[in-house]
Amino acid sequence: MLTTRRRVLMVDSAEATLKTLALELPSPPKALASYVPVQQVGELLYTSGVIPSWNGDVQFRGVVGADVSVKDAARAAEICALNIMALIRQHAGSLDRVEQFIQLSGFVRSAAGFEEQPKVLNGASDLIYKVFGERGRHTRQALGTSELPLGVPVEISAIIRLKP
Amino acid sequence: MLTTRRRVLMVDSAEATLKTLALELPSPPKALASYVPVQQVGELLYTSGVIPSWNGDVQFRGVVGADVSVKDAARAAEICALNIMALIRQHAGSLDRVEQFIQLSGFVRSAAGFEEQPKVLNGASDLIYKVFGERGRHTRQALGTSELPLGVPVEISAIIRLKP
Amino acid sequence: MLTTRRRVLMVDSAEATLKTLALELPSPPKALASYVPVQQVGELLYTSGVIPSWNGDVQFRGVVGADVSVKDAARAAEICALNIMALIRQHAGSLDRVEQFIQLSGFVRSAAGFEEQPKVLNGASDLIYKVFGERGRHTRQALGTSELPLGVPVEISAIIRLKP
Repeated sequence: MLTTRRRVLMVDSAEATLKTLALELPSPPKALASYVPVQQVGELLYTSGVIPSWNGDVQFRGVVGADVSVKDAARAAEICALNIMALIRQHAGSLDRVEQFIQLSGFVRSAAGFEEQPKVLNGASDLIYKVFGERGRHTRQALGTSELPLGVPVEISAIIRLKP
Repeated sequence: MLTTRRRVLMVDSAEATLKTLALELPSPPKALASYVPVQQVGELLYTSGVIPSWNGDVQFRGVVGADVSVKDAARAAEICALNIMALIRQHAGSLDRVEQFIQLSGFVRSAAGFEEQPKVLNGASDLIYKVFGERGRHTRQALGTSELPLGVPVEISAIIRLKP
Repeated sequence: MLTTRRRVLMVDSAEATLKTLALELPSPPKALASYVPVQQVGELLYTSGVIPSWNGDVQFRGVVGADVSVKDAARAAEICALNIMALIRQHAGSLDRVEQFIQLSGFVRSAAGFEEQPKVLNGASDLIYKVFGERGRHTRQALGTSELPLGVPVEISAIIRLKP
């Protein structure tokens, strides 16, 4: 029992899990104007809205339910989550500094009558849970919208509590 | 004067007011995926976006200004507020643990040219003020959008400060 | 060098910068219902969503990319920023009480296919940076939407950290 408990404690590392899953992070998104990618206040880290770009190149464009499938949109949401992780690592030094994900706000560019925004955002939520375990369980705003910057199908921002 | 003051102090109970108004709460909404309905950090409670469902059954669907009237949409917003209260009671044990509502973010699925999102969201804001008094006075984002999960006409999330 | 450094320290006043730029603030927006314009919790100040009104009169209506140009919409975003400053001054007594802007959430009412929400919101972000310097550098959610209250082209809310 002690061994099991020790092992659980030992694998409470998001960085280790990321390696196990063979996941790589993109370079963290840069601010493009008078704003910044993250701001910390106390233990809370706020991110700007991130889009499905990889090292600055937009990976998906279009409208979910029209020219983007739910599957592709969920992949786009995964990429948003990886960008959020890249911001955390850049700011805090390591993903293991995360105490708890508090909230994801996700906007899905939706065709008329498209109602499956939660399925799209599960791409981000499931990946964060996979990497961070219970520390990854967040509240979520799942919203549809008509248009997003650069024509991307999804934009997500996060509030994260860091360890003291 | 003492009597009056005592009485005011005695009725500073959202649970008592709820009973006086003969209002019932639905069962608190459950997380459907890798996210959770609430997260607390310090004294702040963040909720996920809630929709007008009662014990899990969606009560309203449609587009406000088209197939949903402002009156029905305001009722849908009231139901969102009752779901938020259900989450607070489940998490904190009692509505009387609320120190102050800090913010409501409300999204109204709007027909082209519909501009009365504030009237819709007043359904939630007015009910919260009725139940919590000054502790219920929140900041508010009143926004329109084109689509929402499950085709509902309104989605609301909240930030609440709990008593220490 | 000492002189320069002293000068930089001396001009770390948003109120002084506002005067230098000959900028005036509107009267702070009032709550129209059961909500309030701001709520403070600890050092964090949350604002309600503000629209491009001046002393209560809406200055811009319409859809960006259709009947409102990017230039006019950016001016509308500037007016939102001035309203946020008016709320801060009213609540905290002076803009110099700002420790750091934490986040702006901006929604742009967008024509079909309009992708330049960031350019619109730069109207607010750039002005805040101009007035507050590094203290004005915030995270940002830049989002498109189909409809907004009163038909305005942009709505912005803010989270600001005040000095203790």
